[in-house]
Amino acid sequence: MNNSPLSQQSETATTPLPRKILITDCEDAQGLIANITGVCFAHQLNIIKNTEFVDHQQGRFFMRTVLEGKINDEALLADLRQVLPEQNHMKLVDAGKKRIVVLVTKEAHCLGDILMKSYYGGLDVEIAAVIGNYDILQGLTEKFDIPFHYVSHQGLDRQEHEQAMLEKIKHYSPDYIVLAKFMRILTPEFVAEFPNTIINIHHSFLPAFIGASPYRQAWERGVKIIGATAHFVNNCLDEGPIIKQDVINVDHSFSAEEMAHNGRDVEKSVLSKALQLVLEEQVVVYGNKTVVF
Amino acid sequence: MNNSPLSQQSETATTPLPRKILITDCEDAQGLIANITGVCFAHQLNIIKNTEFVDHQQGRFFMRTVLEGKINDEALLADLRQVLPEQNHMKLVDAGKKRIVVLVTKEAHCLGDILMKSYYGGLDVEIAAVIGNYDILQGLTEKFDIPFHYVSHQGLDRQEHEQAMLEKIKHYSPDYIVLAKFMRILTPEFVAEFPNTIINIHHSFLPAFIGASPYRQAWERGVKIIGATAHFVNNCLDEGPIIKQDVINVDHSFSAEEMAHNGRDVEKSVLSKALQLVLEEQVVVYGNKTVVF
Amino acid sequence: MNNSPLSQQSETATTPLPRKILITDCEDAQGLIANITGVCFAHQLNIIKNTEFVDHQQGRFFMRTVLEGKINDEALLADLRQVLPEQNHMKLVDAGKKRIVVLVTKEAHCLGDILMKSYYGGLDVEIAAVIGNYDILQGLTEKFDIPFHYVSHQGLDRQEHEQAMLEKIKHYSPDYIVLAKFMRILTPEFVAEFPNTIINIHHSFLPAFIGASPYRQAWERGVKIIGATAHFVNNCLDEGPIIKQDVINVDHSFSAEEMAHNGRDVEKSVLSKALQLVLEEQVVVYGNKTVVF
Amino acid sequence: MNNSPLSQQSETATTPLPRKILITDCEDAQGLIANITGVCFAHQLNIIKNTEFVDHQQGRFFMRTVLEGKINDEALLADLRQVLPEQNHMKLVDAGKKRIVVLVTKEAHCLGDILMKSYYGGLDVEIAAVIGNYDILQGLTEKFDIPFHYVSHQGLDRQEHEQAMLEKIKHYSPDYIVLAKFMRILTPEFVAEFPNTIINIHHSFLPAFIGASPYRQAWERGVKIIGATAHFVNNCLDEGPIIKQDVINVDHSFSAEEMAHNGRDVEKSVLSKALQLVLEEQVVVYGNKTVVF
Repeated sequence: MNNSPLSQQSETATTPLPRKILITDCEDAQGLIANITGVCFAHQLNIIKNTEFVDHQQGRFFMRTVLEGKINDEALLADLRQVLPEQNHMKLVDAGKKRIVVLVTKEAHCLGDILMKSYYGGLDVEIAAVIGNYDILQGLTEKFDIPFHYVSHQGLDRQEHEQAMLEKIKHYSPDYIVLAKFMRILTPEFVAEFPNTIINIHHSFLPAFIGASPYRQAWERGVKIIGATAHFVNNCLDEGPIIKQDVINVDHSFSAEEMAHNGRDVEKSVLSKALQLVLEEQVVVYGNKTVVF
Repeated sequence: MNNSPLSQQSETATTPLPRKILITDCEDAQGLIANITGVCFAHQLNIIKNTEFVDHQQGRFFMRTVLEGKINDEALLADLRQVLPEQNHMKLVDAGKKRIVVLVTKEAHCLGDILMKSYYGGLDVEIAAVIGNYDILQGLTEKFDIPFHYVSHQGLDRQEHEQAMLEKIKHYSPDYIVLAKFMRILTPEFVAEFPNTIINIHHSFLPAFIGASPYRQAWERGVKIIGATAHFVNNCLDEGPIIKQDVINVDHSFSAEEMAHNGRDVEKSVLSKALQLVLEEQVVVYGNKTVVF
Repeated sequence: MNNSPLSQQSETATTPLPRKILITDCEDAQGLIANITGVCFAHQLNIIKNTEFVDHQQGRFFMRTVLEGKINDEALLADLRQVLPEQNHMKLVDAGKKRIVVLVTKEAHCLGDILMKSYYGGLDVEIAAVIGNYDILQGLTEKFDIPFHYVSHQGLDRQEHEQAMLEKIKHYSPDYIVLAKFMRILTPEFVAEFPNTIINIHHSFLPAFIGASPYRQAWERGVKIIGATAHFVNNCLDEGPIIKQDVINVDHSFSAEEMAHNGRDVEKSVLSKALQLVLEEQVVVYGNKTVVF
Repeated sequence: MNNSPLSQQSETATTPLPRKILITDCEDAQGLIANITGVCFAHQLNIIKNTEFVDHQQGRFFMRTVLEGKINDEALLADLRQVLPEQNHMKLVDAGKKRIVVLVTKEAHCLGDILMKSYYGGLDVEIAAVIGNYDILQGLTEKFDIPFHYVSHQGLDRQEHEQAMLEKIKHYSPDYIVLAKFMRILTPEFVAEFPNTIINIHHSFLPAFIGASPYRQAWERGVKIIGATAHFVNNCLDEGPIIKQDVINVDHSFSAEEMAHNGRDVEKSVLSKALQLVLEEQVVVYGNKTVVF
């Protein structure tokens, strides 16, 4: 908690204290909150925000702590390790801007929303590059002075194509990879290179309408609601940990094409919101689920 | 359209003109609206509300017309038949109160909402009777002076149990049958007795989580949205024409039991709204879908 | 945090440990979370759930802690007082069922939903009594074996009427008073008897359409959304701290009466959800606002 | 209704029949639907879609008809006039792309969404020009090869500034003018030049929080929902006919700035949806309200 009087705050306004985010994920035990926050207190850190979740069924403890102050990462983590159960995961990262690479195919709306939000500050993100297996979105990307790499899959087998993309991606060392309507299935080998790092938008409220043409499936079923799902990618198609979902109403008068047209807005909105959560380190993957703080 | 001057309206206020609802469903053809409304005009009927839908892909025309005036049903339908394509379906029903029978098992929330809305006029319905395969909801039903029939399935095979319910139901000649969390699967024979007449509430946003324990399935999948679906019952489990769907947000902190607890409100709300649409003859079944006017 | 192995849990399943909820509200200071949870740990209490909020602008700290174990209230509060800033408010209450008195006028939908949810366990509440300034809802209340007091305002001035209600209410010592469409304005004297204790449902999304006939006001303005607001009652009409709000879509075809008809569902739903939050001690009043944990 | 067999449709696919939209707005009278659709039928026009609304309280009839075929505008309107009451308004416009001019100040999100949707076909619109009273959004606009006119209000009185904008606007003869976060109040004289033609986005769910700083007002009131309203501009600030509204949930943890940040998404979404309705001639202004077909 911040106990600086306002006068002090204004003095330090020109050189704000650095902020980091600590994610703790371990077996549940008595006294964990007291112990963890006690260590932070001993390190003279302010806790700006603190959120916990305990899965009582599985006895697992999660906490996200926004810390402010002069942080000695190694010393802090070492002291925290002393008070945590043996099996524990900790992540301590800067609270600032993250870097992403975006993969696309032909559709502009999700990429467009990320480009625009990055441009006006709606997302605190650096788009390092966009990679497309078509060159259709090159013009749009370059309007925003962001490099576009056209990596066609024509004449390449799946491994060769992914290898070509991999080289481009690794060059930028992104924190996260965003599939903004990238319409190809990734191999387990590619996914394994980026565990809990690839975010996909699927154009249905999963687990309904897995796979191809979800809007056509929705139209055929006669549903009254369609939706979109942002999730981390794992080895099973459309079955990775879900980050965010949202829906819109439709009715009998919608053709499959009109569902797709109206669905674009919810797709782009869900992807952008999921991305914001991920960029602010509010999402912890846990088995095939997420804790979203 | 109503062209009565207000003075006339107030004179007739004590004896309002009867209202009927005409549903027309036929092959599309040029001039249908003009021809149908022309016949109604010729019969000196006011059109209070008129709504059409054309499925241009399949060339099918649907219209719902609320008529006011002295209606000679047979003459009107005969004249309409003259202007419609040969393959046509027409339905002409009173706009007033409909009669239902409700089937239940153990859970009170959906039955409770229907009872309460019927009590205070939130639904324009006569609940002729409630039938339960447990007697748990007998007390609640009888508080509202509605007959409850306990038709246990114990010791009966499926056909015998349905036969016992069928006798009770037929006694009341209901317009519609409502499955308010009736947790047994009906046989095709039973369903065939009541085509497009049985309304079910399923506790998921179909087609996600078909079948048993949808909240547990939702919890295991880690979804961020749960929902409910009201649909007409046909021979395939949870696959009948959808009338209404709605969803609520959940997060990682919900257990399967808490999802079920919170889901009750959306279940009862979706069922009541679907029922209101059906009671007002706003729903037309078309293949495995509905047109909801 | 719960560190009981599962085997222990099942042993204690027949005599679960008591749970209490601790609300802390004080000036912000460094180390508060560590200090408070440290005291709880020292008292050998499990923290089942812990949620904090810091208003950094005003330097104010709020925490809600669900505690499990053998709690010595006085000793715990005394020890906590040692680690809190001088100006602090603490509230330590049982986690169990609360008692309410409901005030009504003529409309049944909000009362009906509370009665029904109390009946089937959707709300963990004891409805001690219902008081009406009309006797219209006496029949409905008594169906559920709950006392109804008809306290007519006819022939009484406002103070006399409130005095008559006050005597009834005090007899039941309710934890909360629920205005379930009670259509009279309460005097400051009455409200002062029950600070942050009276919950009202207003049939608009406040601050739009304060006062009388909000649906007619909404219809006249031609809004596309209507809503409902549950709030604590203070001395300014419809201006108390907001607990919960929700909306539904309307369109040009709705008359003011149809808005009112459709609004009932959102009114009852918002009131019930607000009540659940209040009953579970998730709501802290703070100035003219609420923190909802 | 379309009675073309599919084989014919594919033949005419290269030269589709022209479509127009007919809006009829007149005193209610018996037989209007039959008469209007009868005239269209006599002109050998297909009715692709037809929607009516009757305000029975005020005796007013509205109809929107999508017509397909070779339309002789003058002859059709003349024949329709024969069958309508004397006081009637008709509007017959091409169904195709409309032209807009966008007015902005400093914020990019609403303009950005319109630019992007226009770019990828999410809105069927030609953005003829953008006019800003600051030059901040010039770079963004010109990325999309659309002219930007910087018309500063510095050193000009209100009339002079509006006159300068008016000249630019008139040069482009737009169908509609969009205020995409244009933060200046327009004079009645300016508004009178463009009746029912100027669309504004206000960052609250009107009529709550009229005027300046609605997010700060919302934060001070402690609301749990914030929203946005798109409306036609008339002479009263924020009181023109409402086209579209939507809301998002907020809680105690949002600062006024965070409400504003999160509100941007709903602002841009509401404005784009309202614009789509207007562009497709689905909105009819009626007194201070809209009929949205």
